[in-house]
Amino acid sequence: MTGSEKTRLKVAVVGGSGYVGGELLRLLLPHPAVGDVRAFSESHAGETWGGVHPSLAHLGGGKFEPPDTAGAAAWADVLFFALPHGRSQEVIPEIPPAGPPLVIDLAADFRIHDQTLYSAYYGEHKAPSALEGFVYGLADVEGSRLRGKGRIAVPGCFATAALLAVHPLAAAGLLGETPTVFAVTGSTGSGVKPKRTTHHPVRAHNFFGYSQGGHRHEAEAAEQIRRWSGEEDGAIRILTHSAPIVRGIHATLLARVKEPLPDPGALFRKAYEGRPFVTVMDSPPELAAVVGSNHAHLHALSREGDRVVVVDCAEDNLVKGAAGQAVQVMNLALGHEETLGLGFGGLYPC
Amino acid sequence: MTGSEKTRLKVAVVGGSGYVGGELLRLLLPHPAVGDVRAFSESHAGETWGGVHPSLAHLGGGKFEPPDTAGAAAWADVLFFALPHGRSQEVIPEIPPAGPPLVIDLAADFRIHDQTLYSAYYGEHKAPSALEGFVYGLADVEGSRLRGKGRIAVPGCFATAALLAVHPLAAAGLLGETPTVFAVTGSTGSGVKPKRTTHHPVRAHNFFGYSQGGHRHEAEAAEQIRRWSGEEDGAIRILTHSAPIVRGIHATLLARVKEPLPDPGALFRKAYEGRPFVTVMDSPPELAAVVGSNHAHLHALSREGDRVVVVDCAEDNLVKGAAGQAVQVMNLALGHEETLGLGFGGLYPC
Amino acid sequence: MTGSEKTRLKVAVVGGSGYVGGELLRLLLPHPAVGDVRAFSESHAGETWGGVHPSLAHLGGGKFEPPDTAGAAAWADVLFFALPHGRSQEVIPEIPPAGPPLVIDLAADFRIHDQTLYSAYYGEHKAPSALEGFVYGLADVEGSRLRGKGRIAVPGCFATAALLAVHPLAAAGLLGETPTVFAVTGSTGSGVKPKRTTHHPVRAHNFFGYSQGGHRHEAEAAEQIRRWSGEEDGAIRILTHSAPIVRGIHATLLARVKEPLPDPGALFRKAYEGRPFVTVMDSPPELAAVVGSNHAHLHALSREGDRVVVVDCAEDNLVKGAAGQAVQVMNLALGHEETLGLGFGGLYPC
Amino acid sequence: MTGSEKTRLKVAVVGGSGYVGGELLRLLLPHPAVGDVRAFSESHAGETWGGVHPSLAHLGGGKFEPPDTAGAAAWADVLFFALPHGRSQEVIPEIPPAGPPLVIDLAADFRIHDQTLYSAYYGEHKAPSALEGFVYGLADVEGSRLRGKGRIAVPGCFATAALLAVHPLAAAGLLGETPTVFAVTGSTGSGVKPKRTTHHPVRAHNFFGYSQGGHRHEAEAAEQIRRWSGEEDGAIRILTHSAPIVRGIHATLLARVKEPLPDPGALFRKAYEGRPFVTVMDSPPELAAVVGSNHAHLHALSREGDRVVVVDCAEDNLVKGAAGQAVQVMNLALGHEETLGLGFGGLYPC
Repeated sequence: MTGSEKTRLKVAVVGGSGYVGGELLRLLLPHPAVGDVRAFSESHAGETWGGVHPSLAHLGGGKFEPPDTAGAAAWADVLFFALPHGRSQEVIPEIPPAGPPLVIDLAADFRIHDQTLYSAYYGEHKAPSALEGFVYGLADVEGSRLRGKGRIAVPGCFATAALLAVHPLAAAGLLGETPTVFAVTGSTGSGVKPKRTTHHPVRAHNFFGYSQGGHRHEAEAAEQIRRWSGEEDGAIRILTHSAPIVRGIHATLLARVKEPLPDPGALFRKAYEGRPFVTVMDSPPELAAVVGSNHAHLHALSREGDRVVVVDCAEDNLVKGAAGQAVQVMNLALGHEETLGLGFGGLYPC
Repeated sequence: MTGSEKTRLKVAVVGGSGYVGGELLRLLLPHPAVGDVRAFSESHAGETWGGVHPSLAHLGGGKFEPPDTAGAAAWADVLFFALPHGRSQEVIPEIPPAGPPLVIDLAADFRIHDQTLYSAYYGEHKAPSALEGFVYGLADVEGSRLRGKGRIAVPGCFATAALLAVHPLAAAGLLGETPTVFAVTGSTGSGVKPKRTTHHPVRAHNFFGYSQGGHRHEAEAAEQIRRWSGEEDGAIRILTHSAPIVRGIHATLLARVKEPLPDPGALFRKAYEGRPFVTVMDSPPELAAVVGSNHAHLHALSREGDRVVVVDCAEDNLVKGAAGQAVQVMNLALGHEETLGLGFGGLYPC
Repeated sequence: MTGSEKTRLKVAVVGGSGYVGGELLRLLLPHPAVGDVRAFSESHAGETWGGVHPSLAHLGGGKFEPPDTAGAAAWADVLFFALPHGRSQEVIPEIPPAGPPLVIDLAADFRIHDQTLYSAYYGEHKAPSALEGFVYGLADVEGSRLRGKGRIAVPGCFATAALLAVHPLAAAGLLGETPTVFAVTGSTGSGVKPKRTTHHPVRAHNFFGYSQGGHRHEAEAAEQIRRWSGEEDGAIRILTHSAPIVRGIHATLLARVKEPLPDPGALFRKAYEGRPFVTVMDSPPELAAVVGSNHAHLHALSREGDRVVVVDCAEDNLVKGAAGQAVQVMNLALGHEETLGLGFGGLYPC
Repeated sequence: MTGSEKTRLKVAVVGGSGYVGGELLRLLLPHPAVGDVRAFSESHAGETWGGVHPSLAHLGGGKFEPPDTAGAAAWADVLFFALPHGRSQEVIPEIPPAGPPLVIDLAADFRIHDQTLYSAYYGEHKAPSALEGFVYGLADVEGSRLRGKGRIAVPGCFATAALLAVHPLAAAGLLGETPTVFAVTGSTGSGVKPKRTTHHPVRAHNFFGYSQGGHRHEAEAAEQIRRWSGEEDGAIRILTHSAPIVRGIHATLLARVKEPLPDPGALFRKAYEGRPFVTVMDSPPELAAVVGSNHAHLHALSREGDRVVVVDCAEDNLVKGAAGQAVQVMNLALGHEETLGLGFGGLYPC
């Protein structure tokens, strides 16, 4: 408990009826530093949180309010946006300059500063001037550097897994050429709205690739890799697949390294030393072991004369890849203990 | 092979784009007695069969034609209807009296002759006069009695499982009071159109009851039980549930019997002796063992001084509970070998 | 937080390497009233908790100690037994009379006082004299009546679901004859040891009945029904099935009632008024909505002139049906707030 | 039907109780060119085929005989070996020189002629002299070149998918450097014996990598790539993963090409023109669309200035990746129509 009731945070979630919004509410409602919570939804205004997200019924809670960015901004200490990509850049500019001290956006809109990269994957940005204030909130890498930041873009779910896998190599200047990530996602990654590829008869025992000509998360990941490595043309391929899983992302990185790396595990352990939510494992991670938690599990090995490194990364796409990381980012920005409200271990087996 | 190419049947499927329609095509295309096949669909007219039903792509095949009941009736030797419930009674009356020798309907519309029973579950029938020509095609019970029939209503998926489980008891006059069937179905039972309860994140690890105040299939099942037992108020409860399975129905019958039945297995084995698609097992059936086949597996035991009988029945809802039984009915009606084109064993494990 | 560090409970888990043991540790480690935790395991002595139960790795934690009932009894304030059925009656008598103030057993061994009932399902009891001290801890029904109890047997997973569904009817004297429960369980119910029926290729898309001639949980459930209804021959049938689910039990109760019950929902709501972990829903419960939580969701409807009642109950077999109920029982016995450490909502979708 | 009863083949399956053996029986029993079938099993001798493989019960069939390689060799026209890797090289040398005209081995033992490659992945070969007679039976590439062959090694399941994806590029001399295949497999790939990683609670919602330091199938795939490309150091990485699927393999190939390939689809369509079991799709293949069939679905795209090609390949691991390809190989070797007995389309949805 970090403060008395009257000093607890007022937190608003804009776009609360999707899976990420529901997960934000699940994590924020019992968060020790959070006092009042409000949630806004266009499609479910007037409905109870528990009616839309069944497990919230057990946590008590209120009703979704109709969208009111200005009102939310005036009221909240922390404002989360969990809107569809492209929508954040329309509404976030509505926040007055004296807006809430902390705005955390979970869409892609404010993750990428290089407009060439952005437009190659997303088209033209509608509010490029609003980008300036935002930093990229890859919490497990940035850590205390996020303290005091007021505008933070939470990384995408695939980008989080890919970047956690590639960061130690990129930061050490070891990347020999464009690395490749083979990633799989569960069906919650496709959102709350039923469609053919998430129809149970179709998805239950299926597996298929998509966006393999260039997944959008390659853009934000490339920007970070360039930043870490100092190489202007740094890039990464993220080949994405849909698996018959509900929650979770598993990423396998294949990277050629500039010089032999006989013990990649040591490099990774050092890179994530003291980071509370990243564990470098002795064997390839099981996705199920992190489902429901904010933890990422990594494993690295080398092969082919130690010139090729394979890194596996497992995370819960809705927690580490979205809402959990967003809460972690809030903790870091506000100077709370990083793990506050995130100390749960996951559900296994599940 | 039962005949030369020129004597093979011309078969039409009206309503071919749903799961039952696709399954009918899958079974009819390689059927030795079937020559030409045509399929009609309102929603997918002009599309290829393989584009709509992926596994049909391997069987070659044509395109869906726009609905044309009269044209189909004039052309076909056998006309299958796989339309939504309520739609068959609108279009089947369009078939001219000199229509095809064999019409097989897979909807509920022509399964129930007692209009009190029908209307209690479905509302008023739009074409009651068309009912007269139809017989109820529970193939594994009726067998050769279907020979020469020209208008056959294929039982519902739950009704098939429930009736196979209850038939030996009802026919022996043993039913002491209203028996209860607890049944579970896979997600294909909900059809091809995505909705919340078949959304993969919702359905993948879920289980829930529905229609437990009175499932529609109770009506047709009651009519058959009355016919078999001679008791005017014969009835059955079918309490239905959705399971995270794609294909299959599992039904558990709980019945009090009028007199102790110490060896219900013997009664069941005798009742289904020689029936090619019903196997009375020595232990409770596994649903997976019948998936992809036209077989039903049954098991019966008694308890509580042999006054209570528990019968389990497993079937593939799309094969035995729909398309497979429809083809079996076609074989029986036309005097072909009952197993013709249905000799496949299923896919296990799958 | 209910006390300072030095007054927190010392808690021991005997049999900590199974799924129930792991779940106990998951709930006890962050429990506000719990201080030190120790866990004992014969098969995994010396291994870390997180090595055996992956999600515990995130919670820190220790190592399994070799079995030492006497030592555990001398050390602990609360002693949980999560041993295979039949094993508790061998080791619990080893606890000295001045043993820990609270012993909670999760096996079947001390649930049933009527030795005729017990032996019909389990064979002869090895320590019937040890039974006397034990009460049956159906937490959501017993509530504050458990306060001060020192020896509590936690109900079985199926029995919990069945009894929550039948209790309001039994207590109101409405049961007309032996009710039937159709129940399904996930694969964690079969334990941590791989076997054919939990082999993924076999189980993943399967469904089958077992123990339908008389499931063991019928015994403890019958004893409670007799106690509630005052009818000496009270009984219940529990027809159990295995579903391709990992966690959870869904039970459907079919009961004839002595007099018409037009609004069973009202009876159920009144019966569970104020009980924090039972919710009477307006529509049939979804199992997924309670997975990972200590909540049970119920729904009741009547049919056939209101003389037949159908009640659905959904619970997490490892939480409400085992470890969660055990912690709830601990809270109640020790006079803590009933929901202490159990306020989590579950994971949905999952 | 290709011949009268008396000229039909006598076929024996040695090692018939595993998943591949069961699948071989499922395909051989109704195969038009096959007459008598016998099956041998050490672990299940004396048991019925249907008792071991539930779906075979519907096909009739016999009992497993105790191992008798010499007897089987003397009796059979075609002898299939579906033994664990390493076992074939022990028993196949027992076949007398005048043995059956056709021996088809499904283990890894006779797939690799380069003993340096073999031993790097498998250790020393016990019967290298027996290797000479064997050819590598990648049916969809070799086609009619298999005619008349008497000793054929069926490719591994991962190798089949990887090689179908890489063959057009390798044969065209386009491979710029070692290509990488990211592959996932269903749980049947782990065999019939329960273990932790196929325990349903562990596997049902899990995903994890394994053998990523060098999967054994890299050896046989490298040998073929060298043969096709003429490059002595040709190689391929196969990074394997376990998915919560029962049947099927999905492989994603990432290859840099020596010169820009703007239309890889055209290259692939030309390479597989007329091959009955390979379809080059217009969009990424769905694994479910080939489950239960002998078909492989491929899709190719280029990216990054057309210098990088991504190829997806989906197959059923037990059919195309094992038993189906083995029957296809038999057809080709004996000069039967390639598709004989393999004309089924699969089960979708399933």
